[in-house]
Amino acid sequence: MNNSVIITNAVMSTPLGRSARKGADMASLHTVEKAAIVVTDGVIDYAGPQSDMPAVTDESRYSHIDAGGCAVLPGFVDSHTHLIFGGYRPDEFEWRLKGDSYMSIMERGGGIQSTVNATRTESAEALARKAQWFIDRMAAMGVTTVEAKSGYGLDTATELKMLDAIDRLASDPNQKLRIVATFLGAHAVPKEYKGRTAEYVDLMISEMLPAVKGKARFCDIFTEKNVFEIEDSRRFLKAAREAGFKLKLHADEIVTLGGAELAAELGAVSADHLLHVSDQGVEDMAAAGVVATLLPLTAFTLKEPYAPARKFIDSGAAVALATDLNPGSCFSGSIPLTIALACIYMNMTIEETITALTINGAAAVDLAERTGSLEQGKDADIIILNTDNYRMLPYYVGMNCVRTVISRGRVVAKND
Amino acid sequence: MNNSVIITNAVMSTPLGRSARKGADMASLHTVEKAAIVVTDGVIDYAGPQSDMPAVTDESRYSHIDAGGCAVLPGFVDSHTHLIFGGYRPDEFEWRLKGDSYMSIMERGGGIQSTVNATRTESAEALARKAQWFIDRMAAMGVTTVEAKSGYGLDTATELKMLDAIDRLASDPNQKLRIVATFLGAHAVPKEYKGRTAEYVDLMISEMLPAVKGKARFCDIFTEKNVFEIEDSRRFLKAAREAGFKLKLHADEIVTLGGAELAAELGAVSADHLLHVSDQGVEDMAAAGVVATLLPLTAFTLKEPYAPARKFIDSGAAVALATDLNPGSCFSGSIPLTIALACIYMNMTIEETITALTINGAAAVDLAERTGSLEQGKDADIIILNTDNYRMLPYYVGMNCVRTVISRGRVVAKND
Repeated sequence: MNNSVIITNAVMSTPLGRSARKGADMASLHTVEKAAIVVTDGVIDYAGPQSDMPAVTDESRYSHIDAGGCAVLPGFVDSHTHLIFGGYRPDEFEWRLKGDSYMSIMERGGGIQSTVNATRTESAEALARKAQWFIDRMAAMGVTTVEAKSGYGLDTATELKMLDAIDRLASDPNQKLRIVATFLGAHAVPKEYKGRTAEYVDLMISEMLPAVKGKARFCDIFTEKNVFEIEDSRRFLKAAREAGFKLKLHADEIVTLGGAELAAELGAVSADHLLHVSDQGVEDMAAAGVVATLLPLTAFTLKEPYAPARKFIDSGAAVALATDLNPGSCFSGSIPLTIALACIYMNMTIEETITALTINGAAAVDLAERTGSLEQGKDADIIILNTDNYRMLPYYVGMNCVRTVISRGRVVAKND
Repeated sequence: MNNSVIITNAVMSTPLGRSARKGADMASLHTVEKAAIVVTDGVIDYAGPQSDMPAVTDESRYSHIDAGGCAVLPGFVDSHTHLIFGGYRPDEFEWRLKGDSYMSIMERGGGIQSTVNATRTESAEALARKAQWFIDRMAAMGVTTVEAKSGYGLDTATELKMLDAIDRLASDPNQKLRIVATFLGAHAVPKEYKGRTAEYVDLMISEMLPAVKGKARFCDIFTEKNVFEIEDSRRFLKAAREAGFKLKLHADEIVTLGGAELAAELGAVSADHLLHVSDQGVEDMAAAGVVATLLPLTAFTLKEPYAPARKFIDSGAAVALATDLNPGSCFSGSIPLTIALACIYMNMTIEETITALTINGAAAVDLAERTGSLEQGKDADIIILNTDNYRMLPYYVGMNCVRTVISRGRVVAKND
């Protein structure tokens, strides 16, 4: 499939750089009013003023896209999803609306455990096929890189099966998106280990980490009261780091526990959720360069307060935004709604929001060298909007403004 | 184009009746687990158990759709939109996020007046072409009937031009949706009449109402403090009623003014918005059978409290839900987000929400005899979901669960 393309007549806006943009720098987008982008074999050769576009040597190799004066941005990075899962949980959604809390449903065996039961009975192939349906929808909304976690197995065989499903998706030569795997065996304490959290941590360290080595780039943990508290989290994450994994944490989602501080202490790549982060946690993350990955769709769905995005940005931290797509607390992959929530309810500007969904999302999956901005040498992950003005993204509330999606040089979605 | 179709293998759920469903009746959907629907020349001949489906006389006339066990519902009715408008207002959206109020922007000449300026310079053809883009998106979300208001002209010629644009859309033989026109000359006091509200009301009564007669089914008014207050509203609406129009009101949106009570007094078909309705207003509307049309996307966008849906339902009123698509306070036509807001933030059940978007929306545009339920003799406005369970609609937050849309017997949208 052709992955060399020349895009002309674009209003290009992009963050710049090969690492996360922090604090006030998040608001800076580089805009070229009449831009061209030259992509050769999936990689950006040139992105800049059309008037300075270099000649290409074998023009017949290139397809041409006239952006028609529309806005062109880097593809979005959805850096926190639970894309692989068995079953669905609409019942639980209704229970919550009638007043049950997420944690009370979890404590009585619903929640994650119910998806674990469904996931254990599915084949890797079936899990991957189901996930592909979501991937196709993500691509249509402009996502060109997605992180996918295991964590609905909670035993070695099923965790491996989930990572196998992710690998099937990632290695499909026709796959629309880049997929990054995270091992989240520490998503919950499985019912078999109820009351024996330390023993489950032992199992993960002694058996699971060696088994999943090479199959996941990240290790993640649900650091939360009555799940994995700080000491268990520290012990597991240190072992994961020693085994060569990069680190992520679900931190301070439901109560203020110190997950953010722990992420900073251990040099995690990101800490995620952070609805109840302490001021110290914000400062520590900013100082340590841990990306704050905020997931407003989950807060929206659970009717929780939004994470303090402004506090992070104003403290000099790097904020990323992601969907948290999962069958329980947040069954949504809506990028348009994520943007609306960030701008309307978290007081982020649209420029900060774009940065959070592009270069900072890329940094949150340790891929800022390859994607997240439109610059020479990066993979050609590019979206063309159906408007000349990226400020339509939050204004057209909850609606998709993406017309064409180019992933590693290939057109993978076209709307309209 | 073929508009005779047989749908089999459906899980059909529908409200029943030819008028609004009120109070506790909103929660009752009639479900048939293995259903068939026979549509002849755009009209439903049969909707019930597949085992009892009657034989059709000329089977070759019919196309066949196997619903594959998926949920089938009546098409949605978006009974409150400002579909026709010139320009866009993303700047104003950003001002609001920085703290400006909707009314303060309006008072300094932004708001509606800025869209009025843009609308006055556009042709009816251009306005219709722009609206068609939104209609195509609505159809893809399952809308089969949409109400469209004038009200960005505020002079006779431009109001007529807007109604002409609506008529061009409605009378297009290939039009996807049924379109109902509302005259909203009383959307704002135009700058030419600043401080002379009564004179503008005189102009509407003496010049506009006769001019738009026959071109709009409804007259609507923005009954609000410092816009059209109660006395002006009563005078205008009585004249409209005498001229043969059915009545709608934008009522109690920003302050508690008594618009709901006025709607009940005058026998309006609907009162809309109602974020600040009084308890008396709720009771009066329930007693008078005025449909309460709630617009949660607007509250969401403006960060206002949601209208008291439960209070209306528990008082025995009929609630409809609509998008309020407009370029100012709510630039969104998202049916999925409307459903999510109704269920998560307004405590409506999914059954009540479906009723609100189907038969009660139809009642709000005085078309409950023709659409809004799946019953013999009604127009074939039908949606097929991509799931067997309509409870996925709110659970899959902000995402479109509609696969196939049939409007008056014709397939007008197909997703996937």
